[in-house]
Amino acid sequence: MRDFSRDHRWLSINTATVRKSAGQELPLPAILEACARRGIRAVSPWRDQVAAIGLSSVSRMVKDLELSLSGYCRGGMFTATDAEGLKLAREDNRRAVEEAAELRAACLVLVVGALPGALAGKAAHKDIGLARGQVVDGIGELLEYARTASMPLAIEPLHPMYAADRACVNTMEQALDICDELDPYRSGSIGVAVDVYHTWWDPKLQQQIERAGGRRLLAFHVCDWLTPTQDLLNDRGMMGDGVIDIPRIRAWVEAQGFAGYSEVEIFSRDNWWKRPHEEVLSTCIERHMSSV
Amino acid sequence: MRDFSRDHRWLSINTATVRKSAGQELPLPAILEACARRGIRAVSPWRDQVAAIGLSSVSRMVKDLELSLSGYCRGGMFTATDAEGLKLAREDNRRAVEEAAELRAACLVLVVGALPGALAGKAAHKDIGLARGQVVDGIGELLEYARTASMPLAIEPLHPMYAADRACVNTMEQALDICDELDPYRSGSIGVAVDVYHTWWDPKLQQQIERAGGRRLLAFHVCDWLTPTQDLLNDRGMMGDGVIDIPRIRAWVEAQGFAGYSEVEIFSRDNWWKRPHEEVLSTCIERHMSSV
Repeated sequence: MRDFSRDHRWLSINTATVRKSAGQELPLPAILEACARRGIRAVSPWRDQVAAIGLSSVSRMVKDLELSLSGYCRGGMFTATDAEGLKLAREDNRRAVEEAAELRAACLVLVVGALPGALAGKAAHKDIGLARGQVVDGIGELLEYARTASMPLAIEPLHPMYAADRACVNTMEQALDICDELDPYRSGSIGVAVDVYHTWWDPKLQQQIERAGGRRLLAFHVCDWLTPTQDLLNDRGMMGDGVIDIPRIRAWVEAQGFAGYSEVEIFSRDNWWKRPHEEVLSTCIERHMSSV
Repeated sequence: MRDFSRDHRWLSINTATVRKSAGQELPLPAILEACARRGIRAVSPWRDQVAAIGLSSVSRMVKDLELSLSGYCRGGMFTATDAEGLKLAREDNRRAVEEAAELRAACLVLVVGALPGALAGKAAHKDIGLARGQVVDGIGELLEYARTASMPLAIEPLHPMYAADRACVNTMEQALDICDELDPYRSGSIGVAVDVYHTWWDPKLQQQIERAGGRRLLAFHVCDWLTPTQDLLNDRGMMGDGVIDIPRIRAWVEAQGFAGYSEVEIFSRDNWWKRPHEEVLSTCIERHMSSV
């Protein structure tokens, strides 16, 4: 396992972590500059943050600052109630692949979607099996396109508490079953993003990380699970402040040959988003060295 | 599958559902009487509610009102940081078995516990594997005792969002692995409590219900998953108000021969606990007939 205690060369910042600074929206250029200034070598930006500035500007900035993208957030949301909805999702996902390629991201992260309408508070139906079928179809179709762009797709299993509204792929095992089905020869074109927040509880986590193998471990995301957790979405903890044994999970991932970035992704409405981003980034660096 | 649309003979009320009426604590005798008055034939009381009145009084009342217990809530919390803590848990669980037997409960429901201290906000360690080992040891020991009392133990896998603080058994597969280990011949002395709230998201749910088989399906709990869910613990929905396809899951359970009660267990601080219990019980009856 790599020694992270001496520097932060393998730290990546998911830009959602500092999308607010002291409660105010922080535009992507300021985030990128703040990261580069601290010797942070990689980021993972969100599509809406990129769209707000413009893809070509962001692309130029990323190059000028010599930043890598540990991933691009995000494709997915494959489910819909009708053919038109599925078509819109397909087109939007193709654009996400193109953007990821332009930004030279290591992978496009997929948050696959769940029951249509549930995120807005009113699910159109209750058939999670149907939603899961649409997800497999959607990923399968996108995979053809992503291969032509040489952009690996990383399925991110989300915590089961998001099964209704954000992602109906909820375990590593389920994600790898999809990978097996769509890419039986493990070409590297599709794999998983392992986020400790979503997967730490899983009694089969180690086994499934070993099943994935190095070629299919495309991203590694860290934050922490707080006790108590006050909010299902926006109360993630800084590494070291919760109950996840992050080094143990990183050891499992690295034992399979994963040698990429540890990407910090913290949604924290009432704590970290209220602090100045300089403090948040400094803390990420510190905790990357002590608690990852 | 049984037809529930004509009556509520297979409805059971977990007494937590009406532990508050219009925001006020409702003592167990009032709950039992209100259930009996509505022709509800079964309940599942909590130990603290029983202790507040006294076991023998409750036992007498249950007999007088001709109520069955679909389960007794609850044993478990097997994890600890030292031998003394483990011993206290062991003794407390034996008392829970005795109480369940006195009340002629169908089973003692086990919420197994998780990282010691986490429920109070400060986990003593982060080793969920260690906690899981203590849980298996604790259940194994209790099982010997429960057999002498002819009291079946029902492991209740809790939703993964409770893995840190309430139960580190989080899937049906994991619970059944424990059953297989402790009772390889499926004597009926240990099985699972399937709560749709905790398990609905699981892509392997149907498969694992089939694996359990009728003899190991000891209890069936219902409520609903709301979108959005405002609180990790106390925002459960009334059947029909959320996204869970309850009849589909009940069909799976009954296909294995389960013929017991559908037990309604709703923790709802800001909605149902604020309403008069008469209204809550009427709604439970209605929804049992329309949405379970």
